[in-house]
Amino acid sequence: MDYDTQLDTAIDRLHEEGRYRTFIDIERKRGQYPHATWTQEDGSEQPITVWCGNDYLGMGQHPVVLAAMHEAIDATGAGSGGTRNISGTTVYHKQLEAELADLHRKESALLFTSAYIANDATLSTLPKLFPGLIIYSDALNHASMIEGVRRNGGAKRIFRHNDLDHLRELLAADDPAAPKLIAFESIYSMDGDFAPIAAICDMADEFGALTYIDEVHAVGMYGPRGGGVAERDGLMGRIDIINGTLAKAYGVMGGYIAASAKMCDAIRSYAPGFIFTTSLPPAVAAGAAASVAHLKTDQTLREQHQTQAKILKLRLKGMGLPIIDHGTHIVPLIVGDPKHTKKLSDMLLSEFGIYVQPINFPTVPRGTERLRFTPSPVHGPREMDALVRALDGLWSHCALNRAELAG
Amino acid sequence: MDYDTQLDTAIDRLHEEGRYRTFIDIERKRGQYPHATWTQEDGSEQPITVWCGNDYLGMGQHPVVLAAMHEAIDATGAGSGGTRNISGTTVYHKQLEAELADLHRKESALLFTSAYIANDATLSTLPKLFPGLIIYSDALNHASMIEGVRRNGGAKRIFRHNDLDHLRELLAADDPAAPKLIAFESIYSMDGDFAPIAAICDMADEFGALTYIDEVHAVGMYGPRGGGVAERDGLMGRIDIINGTLAKAYGVMGGYIAASAKMCDAIRSYAPGFIFTTSLPPAVAAGAAASVAHLKTDQTLREQHQTQAKILKLRLKGMGLPIIDHGTHIVPLIVGDPKHTKKLSDMLLSEFGIYVQPINFPTVPRGTERLRFTPSPVHGPREMDALVRALDGLWSHCALNRAELAG
Ligand SMILES: Cc1ncc(COP(=O)(O)O)c(C=O)c1O
Ligand SMILES: Cc1ncc(COP(=O)(O)O)c(C=O)c1O
Repeated sequence: MDYDTQLDTAIDRLHEEGRYRTFIDIERKRGQYPHATWTQEDGSEQPITVWCGNDYLGMGQHPVVLAAMHEAIDATGAGSGGTRNISGTTVYHKQLEAELADLHRKESALLFTSAYIANDATLSTLPKLFPGLIIYSDALNHASMIEGVRRNGGAKRIFRHNDLDHLRELLAADDPAAPKLIAFESIYSMDGDFAPIAAICDMADEFGALTYIDEVHAVGMYGPRGGGVAERDGLMGRIDIINGTLAKAYGVMGGYIAASAKMCDAIRSYAPGFIFTTSLPPAVAAGAAASVAHLKTDQTLREQHQTQAKILKLRLKGMGLPIIDHGTHIVPLIVGDPKHTKKLSDMLLSEFGIYVQPINFPTVPRGTERLRFTPSPVHGPREMDALVRALDGLWSHCALNRAELAG
Repeated sequence: MDYDTQLDTAIDRLHEEGRYRTFIDIERKRGQYPHATWTQEDGSEQPITVWCGNDYLGMGQHPVVLAAMHEAIDATGAGSGGTRNISGTTVYHKQLEAELADLHRKESALLFTSAYIANDATLSTLPKLFPGLIIYSDALNHASMIEGVRRNGGAKRIFRHNDLDHLRELLAADDPAAPKLIAFESIYSMDGDFAPIAAICDMADEFGALTYIDEVHAVGMYGPRGGGVAERDGLMGRIDIINGTLAKAYGVMGGYIAASAKMCDAIRSYAPGFIFTTSLPPAVAAGAAASVAHLKTDQTLREQHQTQAKILKLRLKGMGLPIIDHGTHIVPLIVGDPKHTKKLSDMLLSEFGIYVQPINFPTVPRGTERLRFTPSPVHGPREMDALVRALDGLWSHCALNRAELAG
């Protein structure tokens, strides 16, 4: 067996398709977001502006978050020292779970080390709790949901993205007595479009299905207390399991589900991905709890965020650049080819100090490669001007299409 | 569909078998490990001594670790703000990976959010890189390895725990041309026994198989620089992929693999569990890097750790208590029944302020339920005396067997 040659083959494939990923080494400066330092391969440093982070509201540098982390480190130390069951449950974990249950107006919440694991572990455990469960999964669901749905080989149906007719067709074709679950996202992070949440809940009622929503790109940012799109639309009570992250708008790390006490208790008891891993460091839980609590009342940050996104979209549209606009805070600019996308990203970084990572397959379908901008309250007019000017220049320089490619 | 009734059934099953888990809410006091505060359901607090943590060396309160975390928070904030590919790679992540590659004398290391994910993601991705791969997995491998091996339905063979004859039999029965991988642990954490690493490497050579070792319960604690049992035995160079955690002896959080540059590059590029999740907070990476660096030179902590384990084992054996002793730092005391184990644990906590969680199925096989003690350099003679006296009294009180049950 020549294992090395096989590794070469696997890596060469990526180079050939222009989707080999190079990680850019950056350090954001606390108090100066979105400004950061880029350390190049040769060790030299250069100031840059980050335009593709998912710390959507800049909470990663918020004083209440940082103070909570410092205090927890001083009080209790670095790690939790155990799994949740074996010495790794602390007051910090309990408080965060209480904060999250309250956020979503659910009886309970269950903390995982990430929303990736929360999706994977929960979706793969539900078929153990409901034997014969059929999961109806949106075609554009995140990799973590796909992995969870696939893991134990349970029954699954993939419905075309946001296509209610297709979902109905699939539901109607199955045994009415079978347990069912519809799994979807509130905001799809690469196109920035919303799911028809109310209509999906109606359909779940009609067919007696449970509902599972991933609000990873919405919690903290939508709804009067940051409970997500389902909160904004008054629908949280109709969702059985809400999944969220503490690593994007909340600016720290970790993931969770919020659901009935029984549901959380059963997942807690049966999901290997929850049981057999060290719990989050107390300082991470403390920082996240402070962030969630803060965003329950701070409307200003949420409004600024939406305003910044609107301005950027207006300005890019004004120049005829092919952005996608579904009314969310995410601004995808379609390039449509992996090599061009990489080239544009490289030029923005080296010539303008603007960092936006190219997004390629498998994160998005081939032919829709893109630059994905995430404007936030920390991006001021100066940063916005610099970005708009750079893109305008590059678009002309590369003779790229200004037609409205995307809808 | 009555989903609630099904949840009741799932939870009732655990109660009936006496293995419903209740999480104890504790907060360790920095500078006073292993002392902690237990917050009871009614909110009242009680001082306790933690005897079941996996912060084996007390690094979770070490000043170099805490200083590194504070500094990173002040410099760069709370979270990383992105996945490794999209704005979430920082100097802290790079430095930690360099520290880990050096620790294991490998070309590269790849950081994951936990060793659970490192096992699951790596083992489930290898069959994509080596089509037709057969994985030979020790029967007592950790849940995270089992999940990884099972995930994509690749070929697997389970060999009886540490049974080289059985392993050979399985290897010999398969096509000599098929790619193969032997996956095992250096120390099995619930019995505390070692794997025959050298013999497994010999067999891998003979059959042209790759080797994968989980050193989660050994890194930091064994080997002249904390590289694990494979370092102690001069075998690191013979292992293709080494898996470790930053959450146990290193006292923080996170997991990794160390391997050739190509292997790490391929896993980095193909493993969803690595790609599609927010990277560790910079402060966590910084704390872990400081811990790894520190334990490359601090022999004292490692020696104290082994000494404490030896003393505790000697004293418990002296009283005829049925502990398992395979010469590692883990001290399992076999009770053999889930309800008795829970009872003993409850009495130790409420009457003596000693916290040791009962270990039940599925973490250990039924009939081998146990209390698992983890003595460490922070457990002084006073804590040891209190534990030994409490166990002696309870053993008599409950009329438990003092015969040498376990080998
Ligand atoms: C839709 C969606 N769900 C889940 C996740 C995983 O979240 P986390 O970073 O907390 O693992 C992500 C991205 O990281 C995501 O985009
Ligand atoms: C043998 C073994 N491997 C892996 C893990 C997972 O490590 P982590 O806590 O970093 O997820 C554990 C325990 O948590 C373990 O005991």
